[in-house]
Amino acid sequence: MKSVFPYDSVELSPNGREVVILDQTQLPNQERFLHLTSAEQIFYAITRLKVRGAPAIGIAAAFGLAMCVNRYRTRTVQALEKEFLRVKHYLYISRPTAVNLMWALDRMERCFYSTKQNLETADDKHAIGALRKALTAEARAIKAEDVRMCETISKFGFSLLHPGCGILTHCNAGHLAVSKFGTALGPIYLAQQKGYLPHVFCDETRPLLQGARLTAYELSKAGIDVTLICDNMAATLMSQGKVDFVFVGCDRVAANGDVANKIGTNGVAIIAKYYKVPLYVFAPTSTIDFNCKQGADIVIEERPAFEVTDMYYSKPMAPRGIQVYNPAFDVTPASLIAGIVTEKGIIKPREIKNLKKLK
Amino acid sequence: MKSVFPYDSVELSPNGREVVILDQTQLPNQERFLHLTSAEQIFYAITRLKVRGAPAIGIAAAFGLAMCVNRYRTRTVQALEKEFLRVKHYLYISRPTAVNLMWALDRMERCFYSTKQNLETADDKHAIGALRKALTAEARAIKAEDVRMCETISKFGFSLLHPGCGILTHCNAGHLAVSKFGTALGPIYLAQQKGYLPHVFCDETRPLLQGARLTAYELSKAGIDVTLICDNMAATLMSQGKVDFVFVGCDRVAANGDVANKIGTNGVAIIAKYYKVPLYVFAPTSTIDFNCKQGADIVIEERPAFEVTDMYYSKPMAPRGIQVYNPAFDVTPASLIAGIVTEKGIIKPREIKNLKKLK
Repeated sequence: MKSVFPYDSVELSPNGREVVILDQTQLPNQERFLHLTSAEQIFYAITRLKVRGAPAIGIAAAFGLAMCVNRYRTRTVQALEKEFLRVKHYLYISRPTAVNLMWALDRMERCFYSTKQNLETADDKHAIGALRKALTAEARAIKAEDVRMCETISKFGFSLLHPGCGILTHCNAGHLAVSKFGTALGPIYLAQQKGYLPHVFCDETRPLLQGARLTAYELSKAGIDVTLICDNMAATLMSQGKVDFVFVGCDRVAANGDVANKIGTNGVAIIAKYYKVPLYVFAPTSTIDFNCKQGADIVIEERPAFEVTDMYYSKPMAPRGIQVYNPAFDVTPASLIAGIVTEKGIIKPREIKNLKKLK
Repeated sequence: MKSVFPYDSVELSPNGREVVILDQTQLPNQERFLHLTSAEQIFYAITRLKVRGAPAIGIAAAFGLAMCVNRYRTRTVQALEKEFLRVKHYLYISRPTAVNLMWALDRMERCFYSTKQNLETADDKHAIGALRKALTAEARAIKAEDVRMCETISKFGFSLLHPGCGILTHCNAGHLAVSKFGTALGPIYLAQQKGYLPHVFCDETRPLLQGARLTAYELSKAGIDVTLICDNMAATLMSQGKVDFVFVGCDRVAANGDVANKIGTNGVAIIAKYYKVPLYVFAPTSTIDFNCKQGADIVIEERPAFEVTDMYYSKPMAPRGIQVYNPAFDVTPASLIAGIVTEKGIIKPREIKNLKKLK
């Protein structure tokens, strides 16, 4: 698959001592890159959505952990282990819903201990070097696997499309949200490259406007025919027959096939069902949480009122002190989902449990 | 019914020479009143949504027409008639979807000609005075009838409620949108006065934020327990069982019971149906358009991209030049509506045609 952009949203510098991210809060007005050199900066970048999208968060956290280990000055493995665990536990709670975050950090921990185990007889200096090298390689592997996953998922998604089709997408599950290409937007880039010229409608995605700021930005930058709408206009488009597919990303899949994704996904899914438009959820298997039996068990992050009443506005847009309910995610029941597109194929939500056996 | 606010959104000055409106584009930050003294100012106030809400627009147009006739300096009935028709036709096209606008202006025209007919033998000076008086009285009557209509509609709506119920509303069909009290919000004010203490959730209503700026403002000012949400959060609230009713206003009802209302209403209606939450449309019979057979025949106003990409923001929130689809209204099919609350009672959408016989 051809590259879409000259940069990725998350990179680890060649010496492993800086995490470089494109500050997504500044888009579409500025393409500003941040060079992060501490756990606190990584944490802040994640909580403030400077880096966002479940896969990109996982990669940023893994890179962040490797970067902290590379920068930490110590002469003992014991101190390095303590620092590693401090950073890991600290980053673990930066966003509650994106399971990739926990998945990537747990994988880094397994790497730490398996490496350490093989080094029992080595001296501290040698062991510290080996741990740094192994963790850096593991973090880079997480990203490389994500790139391959996105390419595969893009091909599966592309197989659903036809030339000139209309696709509605919500939030941003594109290049900016992952390592490369995107999950829900990946098939659109591939379709464009293959001459299908899809028409894409993107929900602005209140309150943080990931659709307007990020999806509209990356799709238009790639030359794709994209039309921006407010979230509440999706039903009108579907009633006019302009939407053949809804493609959305995913933050977490429960074992029963329920899906947590950006707030508004469930509403779009209900509307799509009403208009008989199939909705596909793009979910690398790393977003599947077999420990979570059903959607109702997923912890939904609630974010500050400020995001709804003031953020991005030149003046407050609601009366002072108004009560606000601002959940960051919602849960779409399995029954509303036509298929879950994973790197292992397109599966029915109810078949998620079969994947466990494959793992 | 007790008054909720010390002012109305649209008034005609005692001498009939000024239309005084609360500038709704400045809310919730400023309560600024505008004194309008020309047809152009009325037209501008309507197109720029300084006055909005189908009934309030109708009242503003009728007041505007009376004000222009009162201010127009002429010695001949012929010249006054010409000016009357110029202003009437000019205001007629200020907003395409709100049928009250055309209804109020047509009613003023009937008043003009029936008054003129009765004055065939009068001299011009006397006739001009009589026409001014009749048109001013007619415009005031339109408002007075709207107040009575709102009180009646509020009582019918209230009869649906129970103490402590949860109500979701979209856009603003309150005091600010009508003469007094509101249509969809009227029953909420009455419920509050009767000690029912309803919990109200209000959709912010992108792109013009009538829910955040106006509904949240007027409900909180009246001491009602109101929580603001983004439009895309309605499904989440309903999935949690927090919403017992959806109450919305109406811009136009087609003869088959389809309803045009603020963009997003149809989506909310589909979601409410999915969660078995009854949706009631509050529609004075003046919003029923028997000439319009079905929803598909209603002309939907498309508004500028600017409202979605830039308006209210401190910086543009989408890439420059992005395509935007920005319909101001959508059509909710009759099948999704539990009842239409009119001043003649709560009726099923399919029974709309029976009202024609009553008229």
